[in-house]
Amino acid sequence: MTRVEFFYDYASTYSYLAHREIERIASEAGAELVFRPMVLGFVFKATGNTMPAAVPAKAAYMVHDVARWARHYGLPFRMPSVFPANTIRALRGAVAALQDGGFPAYHHAVMEAYWARNRDIGDRDVLAAVTRETGLDAERLVARTEDAAVKDQLKANTDEAISRGVFGAPTFFVGDAMYWGNDRLQFVEAALHG
Amino acid sequence: MTRVEFFYDYASTYSYLAHREIERIASEAGAELVFRPMVLGFVFKATGNTMPAAVPAKAAYMVHDVARWARHYGLPFRMPSVFPANTIRALRGAVAALQDGGFPAYHHAVMEAYWARNRDIGDRDVLAAVTRETGLDAERLVARTEDAAVKDQLKANTDEAISRGVFGAPTFFVGDAMYWGNDRLQFVEAALHG
Repeated sequence: MTRVEFFYDYASTYSYLAHREIERIASEAGAELVFRPMVLGFVFKATGNTMPAAVPAKAAYMVHDVARWARHYGLPFRMPSVFPANTIRALRGAVAALQDGGFPAYHHAVMEAYWARNRDIGDRDVLAAVTRETGLDAERLVARTEDAAVKDQLKANTDEAISRGVFGAPTFFVGDAMYWGNDRLQFVEAALHG
Repeated sequence: MTRVEFFYDYASTYSYLAHREIERIASEAGAELVFRPMVLGFVFKATGNTMPAAVPAKAAYMVHDVARWARHYGLPFRMPSVFPANTIRALRGAVAALQDGGFPAYHHAVMEAYWARNRDIGDRDVLAAVTRETGLDAERLVARTEDAAVKDQLKANTDEAISRGVFGAPTFFVGDAMYWGNDRLQFVEAALHG
């Protein structure tokens, strides 16, 4: 079965913009979608890259650009008051949900809570509440974010991303071919159908 | 008549990738295409932005990304040996050709010489030879790159770009709406048809 890997961080606007579209693309191509949560801040630090919003003129433009993409995909969008959030716990939660089950519900809930409902997913109580709303065992999942096996897997994902050439998010791989940005999903789609 | 402005520099890879596509889009929309050569290095300096290739991992990725876009558009592409070239004279030549006539032939010839035929358009003799091949009066056009009116217009374009929020190339405007990158041309197209 063809696979597509999706390296993302909940703090990445363009990861949010891509997160439903990559599911559609993988599903239509009959490809396995492999979720690879990573810590984007560590990727930036390791590669010397910076947040796009670090250039003021780019930050001003991004407001319009993101609104266009959200309309294009039919996604609700509201710029979070806390940006970037500290997403390490939320990413560890994703790793735990991938290991224990419940990932899709958790993942969609966290994406939407932060990017459409202005909830600070960096706050432990908010993250637990968002998880609880999905019907998952929130206390158990949030407790799992403290486990060494979960922490280590998130670190391993991040290190692997850096070693494979990732410098931003979202980044997709089809085999060794790397694609950066929601605006490269047409090439991901073509690769999966090729 | 609807207008679309195209701010570009001959040193910008993604401007090359966009340069034929924006002509198709404007033509099909019945829109006027307004060419706005600018000095990208000055834009970077004024905005604090940097060349995408300044991050090594991004530079490595761009080799593949650019090849994908070139295939997608059916454009020949060969990474120039001299990169970035000093394009100030070539940009002044564009301003002169816009004022005096002969712009499309000059513009296409310079884009192709640099991005498909590895010719250093930063060299005055090379620029003259490339211009001569189009049938234009190369000596006259290259001499015009020394005129104050031409130099001033290029500086005015660059200053205007910065004041309107440009931080990279290619950048398109439809009215006040700004679009950065060849990968936003679908939004430009939609705006021209809207």
